Amino acid sequence: MFYENSTRTRLSFELAAKYMSASAANVSSGASSVLKGENLIDTAKTIDAMGTDIIIIRHPMSGAADLIASNVSASVINAGDGMHEHPTQALLDLFTITEKKGEVNNLRVAIVGDILHSRVARSNIWGLTRLGAKVSVGAPLTLLPPEISKMGVQVFESVQEAIIDADVVMSLRMQTERQKSGLYPTNDEYARFFGIDEKRIRLAKPDALLMHPGPVNRGVELSPQIADFERSVINEQVTNGVAVRMAVLYLYTRGDEN
Amino acid sequence: MFYENSTRTRLSFELAAKYMSASAANVSSGASSVLKGENLIDTAKTIDAMGTDIIIIRHPMSGAADLIASNVSASVINAGDGMHEHPTQALLDLFTITEKKGEVNNLRVAIVGDILHSRVARSNIWGLTRLGAKVSVGAPLTLLPPEISKMGVQVFESVQEAIIDADVVMSLRMQTERQKSGLYPTNDEYARFFGIDEKRIRLAKPDALLMHPGPVNRGVELSPQIADFERSVINEQVTNGVAVRMAVLYLYTRGDEN
Amino acid sequence: MFYENSTRTRLSFELAAKYMSASAANVSSGASSVLKGENLIDTAKTIDAMGTDIIIIRHPMSGAADLIASNVSASVINAGDGMHEHPTQALLDLFTITEKKGEVNNLRVAIVGDILHSRVARSNIWGLTRLGAKVSVGAPLTLLPPEISKMGVQVFESVQEAIIDADVVMSLRMQTERQKSGLYPTNDEYARFFGIDEKRIRLAKPDALLMHPGPVNRGVELSPQIADFERSVINEQVTNGVAVRMAVLYLYTRGDEN
Repeated sequence: MFYENSTRTRLSFELAAKYMSASAANVSSGASSVLKGENLIDTAKTIDAMGTDIIIIRHPMSGAADLIASNVSASVINAGDGMHEHPTQALLDLFTITEKKGEVNNLRVAIVGDILHSRVARSNIWGLTRLGAKVSVGAPLTLLPPEISKMGVQVFESVQEAIIDADVVMSLRMQTERQKSGLYPTNDEYARFFGIDEKRIRLAKPDALLMHPGPVNRGVELSPQIADFERSVINEQVTNGVAVRMAVLYLYTRGDEN
Repeated sequence: MFYENSTRTRLSFELAAKYMSASAANVSSGASSVLKGENLIDTAKTIDAMGTDIIIIRHPMSGAADLIASNVSASVINAGDGMHEHPTQALLDLFTITEKKGEVNNLRVAIVGDILHSRVARSNIWGLTRLGAKVSVGAPLTLLPPEISKMGVQVFESVQEAIIDADVVMSLRMQTERQKSGLYPTNDEYARFFGIDEKRIRLAKPDALLMHPGPVNRGVELSPQIADFERSVINEQVTNGVAVRMAVLYLYTRGDEN
Repeated sequence: MFYENSTRTRLSFELAAKYMSASAANVSSGASSVLKGENLIDTAKTIDAMGTDIIIIRHPMSGAADLIASNVSASVINAGDGMHEHPTQALLDLFTITEKKGEVNNLRVAIVGDILHSRVARSNIWGLTRLGAKVSVGAPLTLLPPEISKMGVQVFESVQEAIIDADVVMSLRMQTERQKSGLYPTNDEYARFFGIDEKRIRLAKPDALLMHPGPVNRGVELSPQIADFERSVINEQVTNGVAVRMAVLYLYTRGDEN
């Protein structure tokens, strides 16, 4: 159930399902009962009643996955709910870091950009701190959630300070479609003060990884060249995303097979 | 070929096809040659020429399925044509009633709501009367087709009279997207005079089933609570829909396999 | 990746893939990262990184398939790029001609209609002349590309002259969605001077084939009756299209299996 535009996550889940020979079908908000006024719980119950083992949902409302999980017997996978969580993105990021760095424990991870609107940031902060990473966040004050420091991260209003000595620099996408106007002056000014470029990345450790959940706004959060930088693992994140989602699908169907 | 918005029926057919390992592909009116001015018969002939065994069509025009059936060699399944017929919905309703009540013969079935615009009502009246049920319909005069009594049903302009002593109460969705304005004052007034609530359902037999083809407009044709009522079989209808459509697909491909 | 509306080609490729048990997923421009500002190369790299063996792309920009082919490791199949090429259409047309006429060499093939906007014409001219056919094109001057004669074809501004003694008459669709205004007065006037009807087809050889890539605008490039004419192979083109695309998919995956 993809109720927001998505190529990357929808395709990643769809291919993960198909690679595992599942029968997968898409529901989008555009061509559905949603337009006929049915509420989300009733739509989910209907899909559940069709013999569905797993419902994968992306929804603009925070809590949508949780809401339907308590109303259906299928397993529910949260593929992004509003500004709340995007757990499989965090799992694939943790997997990618582990693959490259051996472990997450004690790594310094800087998360830079639009923290306020980012479910990717929330899920990653939760997972990274659990696994023992030291997380710093860097963003303009207007793009920082009020009580973010309570999540156990160090907060900086300068990208440079956040990045210093990082093992991993995680840049976030400017969620322009989720923002109300006026949070920052222009894309150019954002890029100038907060964008990651070849100069700023040198503030991190010499073997630091550059990550981004995609899709990248080149010239905004990343300089046009740096997305193709040698220590960028952006494409590995995509590849690992399919594998991680296959693993999640496997774990949630395993019960039926045994 | 789904030329109207649909989650429920499209997904039900798609999952039925996939559960049976068919190669299924979707054509919708939004992203197709329809926009390039091709007529429906030519589109159907093209799909037929691609080696398609079965074409499942939903179309806003009454008679669309019949029209293409006489122009292609594939089997054609009507998934709803205008205000005319929705045969697999009636089959799944008949199956659900039989499953719960043992047989359809001699049951009293009340169909309540927007009969005028309802292909579900037409297909069910046809099937129910054939199988020996006594069918009553209840609706405001403006939502009753002129010569509906010729279909062998008792007609009431009050929901209460239609429901009395019914074994099955079948509520229809208000097809607001199919209605011209002015057929009834407001949703609230409709609910007050014609909606099914916990009081009205008691006019039916104590073991009466409550059915609805979905999606439900809660608070309009059904009171907010009654869709979850203990004798509601709305979710069973959905489950049976997949099984019935698998059976229909099986019957229409069986010839090729023998 | 279908970035233009398409039933015929998208469905043909999708069914070809499914008939061969591939895991196929759709990306369209409407519900994708495209709307989030990601560039085409980044989208293609993302899909590539998901373990995709073959990317099939239709795009309004000439050169789009070539552009992504040099940026991904998957095989890229051009399903139509702007006004440039549509190679699998030409392959299926060549296959259909060979099936009916035994060989392409020395046949006279007349291509009639909107040559200017037609990627089908460009791919067919290239393939037909390579295989030894004599190709003539007939169109109003405004629908002829400036230096078309350099492609080795005879150019006529009259449909009658182009068709005389042809073994194959290939009519093109009026690409009304690709045309700027004013290239020809009206559909009726176009039909009168350049449409193929039962009288004009008699100028070709008595056993001449009538071809059209579809979808047909009946009453414009073809008279309403002639699309169903006995020597029309329009539906055979569709059937052969699936087979040819299966062959193309097979050839581009063969390497992995050996």
